[in-house]
Amino acid sequence: MTTIPSTNDAAIDTTRSRVAPEAVYEIAPGLGHFTDDVLFGDVWLRLQLAPRDRSLVTVATLVSTGKTPQIGSHVRRALDNGVQPAEIGELITHLAFYSGWPNAMSAVTETKKIFETRGIAPLQEDSSPRIELDAAAEAARRGTVEKAVAPTAPALADLTNQVLFGNLWTRPQLAPRDRSLVTVAALVAIGQPEQLPFHLNRAMDNGLTQTEASEVLAHIAFYAGWPRAMSAVPVFERVFAGRPERS
Amino acid sequence: MTTIPSTNDAAIDTTRSRVAPEAVYEIAPGLGHFTDDVLFGDVWLRLQLAPRDRSLVTVATLVSTGKTPQIGSHVRRALDNGVQPAEIGELITHLAFYSGWPNAMSAVTETKKIFETRGIAPLQEDSSPRIELDAAAEAARRGTVEKAVAPTAPALADLTNQVLFGNLWTRPQLAPRDRSLVTVAALVAIGQPEQLPFHLNRAMDNGLTQTEASEVLAHIAFYAGWPRAMSAVPVFERVFAGRPERS
Amino acid sequence: MTTIPSTNDAAIDTTRSRVAPEAVYEIAPGLGHFTDDVLFGDVWLRLQLAPRDRSLVTVATLVSTGKTPQIGSHVRRALDNGVQPAEIGELITHLAFYSGWPNAMSAVTETKKIFETRGIAPLQEDSSPRIELDAAAEAARRGTVEKAVAPTAPALADLTNQVLFGNLWTRPQLAPRDRSLVTVAALVAIGQPEQLPFHLNRAMDNGLTQTEASEVLAHIAFYAGWPRAMSAVPVFERVFAGRPERS
Repeated sequence: MTTIPSTNDAAIDTTRSRVAPEAVYEIAPGLGHFTDDVLFGDVWLRLQLAPRDRSLVTVATLVSTGKTPQIGSHVRRALDNGVQPAEIGELITHLAFYSGWPNAMSAVTETKKIFETRGIAPLQEDSSPRIELDAAAEAARRGTVEKAVAPTAPALADLTNQVLFGNLWTRPQLAPRDRSLVTVAALVAIGQPEQLPFHLNRAMDNGLTQTEASEVLAHIAFYAGWPRAMSAVPVFERVFAGRPERS
Repeated sequence: MTTIPSTNDAAIDTTRSRVAPEAVYEIAPGLGHFTDDVLFGDVWLRLQLAPRDRSLVTVATLVSTGKTPQIGSHVRRALDNGVQPAEIGELITHLAFYSGWPNAMSAVTETKKIFETRGIAPLQEDSSPRIELDAAAEAARRGTVEKAVAPTAPALADLTNQVLFGNLWTRPQLAPRDRSLVTVAALVAIGQPEQLPFHLNRAMDNGLTQTEASEVLAHIAFYAGWPRAMSAVPVFERVFAGRPERS
Repeated sequence: MTTIPSTNDAAIDTTRSRVAPEAVYEIAPGLGHFTDDVLFGDVWLRLQLAPRDRSLVTVATLVSTGKTPQIGSHVRRALDNGVQPAEIGELITHLAFYSGWPNAMSAVTETKKIFETRGIAPLQEDSSPRIELDAAAEAARRGTVEKAVAPTAPALADLTNQVLFGNLWTRPQLAPRDRSLVTVAALVAIGQPEQLPFHLNRAMDNGLTQTEASEVLAHIAFYAGWPRAMSAVPVFERVFAGRPERS
């Protein structure tokens, strides 16, 4: 009744067990209610976004906003929802670049505790082939960086081309669609809309549907707060309007 | 001389005791001086904002920006300044929505320690009648959400209408003026100005005076940093200019 | 091989020892590689920004974004890179104003541990003469505050004039160029671009070169994440374009 269960979310619906620890009911009874009846009793169960995706979005939000104390329980939940250990490690690596090294280092510490409890062995570097980026899109991206960044910040432009897109984004440990999903989640969560049009378009090019993208906003509202989600709505609206497909 | 007193602020003025721990003077002597002579020796004593309001603003800033280590001492101070335990619990519940669940969960843990030390019993849900929102204002708000949010993010729009304004804002545990005050404080503190015009107008409709709102900015400057306060000034300026009253 | 060395960075280049703890390689192997081969194997060694400046920028980023767990190891590195204890204390004092008291208080706690380990005695207030601000620049700044801030937030305007620029910025514990450098770093790191034009111009008036300023962006990208650095690029571009010198 009082601890965060490590079982699959599906169990929550049938047993109506509480996710919120007893302390939440004692100090902030309303928060207990909203946690169990709305967040876990409704939002996490909505079909518009798969549990695995919700876990990717949640862990990305926690890591990118530095919410260290909550990372452990959501890494457990992510594993239960089918996220692989190597994918969690790569999500952390990715968000080192998108939200800073300190967040990633703290996430490593919390994740290590969970991996040890679960008996997950230390990860090895994946030797799968690199992912090929779309040549035309990559040329366009590089052109923008050379024009908009290089004259002002040449080292930042170089690192963006060589390390971020020349290395990080080609790593096979996360599918491009999932890598884009955690990037979009992080940008919404940290309140940095400027890079969202590029990355949301990239995410949808990589297979994220409009229905999923919309649902990501509702999900992040709970983990990064309503204002971050609401401020991202007009950016999503413009990206959706600029694309032909509907889903 | 060295610990943060749990007594009423009024005592600080007469005894000129230090609030800053000795470690502050040892590591950053200037910070010790500014803490005792400016922040607690002047700002907290200014009459333009009541001590209870300063505590609401401070705790809202700490919770919404995730400054967990400082929450305990300011929950103590808030209790000394007349904020009721149920109001603190509801502030945390409210800021779960306005700054994300993780901040609220961490705040519960810190607050529980203070409530236990003070012998405050676990809270019960308040069974007072719900607060009636102004029907015209609520219709206008809902219209905006239906038009600006629903087409892009239908779940977020539904949750905003059903849960945020259909439930959270009608809860009687915080007076509407205080609920607005902590919302405004959080929006300034997290640096999210887009929602400020709506919520500052709502706060002033709910009874916050212009003098108080101005003073909130000076107070938050110390707890969330000057840049967040300065960037909110033009937003406050426009809201003040659009309203008839002066106070 | 596994702990963060407290020795001078120059040693890292010759020994190729790892900076990333073993846990990083076990949980996020990619992050281990990027930490040792890119961040410490390349970025920290680049000559466009001195190691002492990189330490000032890094500690300013950590303090202003509240990354408490990482502060200790970078205070050690800062001391090794020639930053004086009194300068670290003053950086913390300065960032209390520019990123809020809670960040500064947490930084004091972490820094105290390092100072004790290193046998650094408690600091005394510096009795050197105050720094004279340029009279014309100060008159212009004050004029802007009186016009843009005082009518809306009189207390904030007063505190800005009397305490920030009338006291903090005249303190001799940090050279004006270094005080500007940590201010610029904090504004980029917290994602608050509005005050950047004023402070980047001030930093360059105080001796920061364009080459150094550009390199600051690349360095901060690793400690506050790529989006914060990228969003600052157009602001830096406009400031550079508005100044005659090149360096």
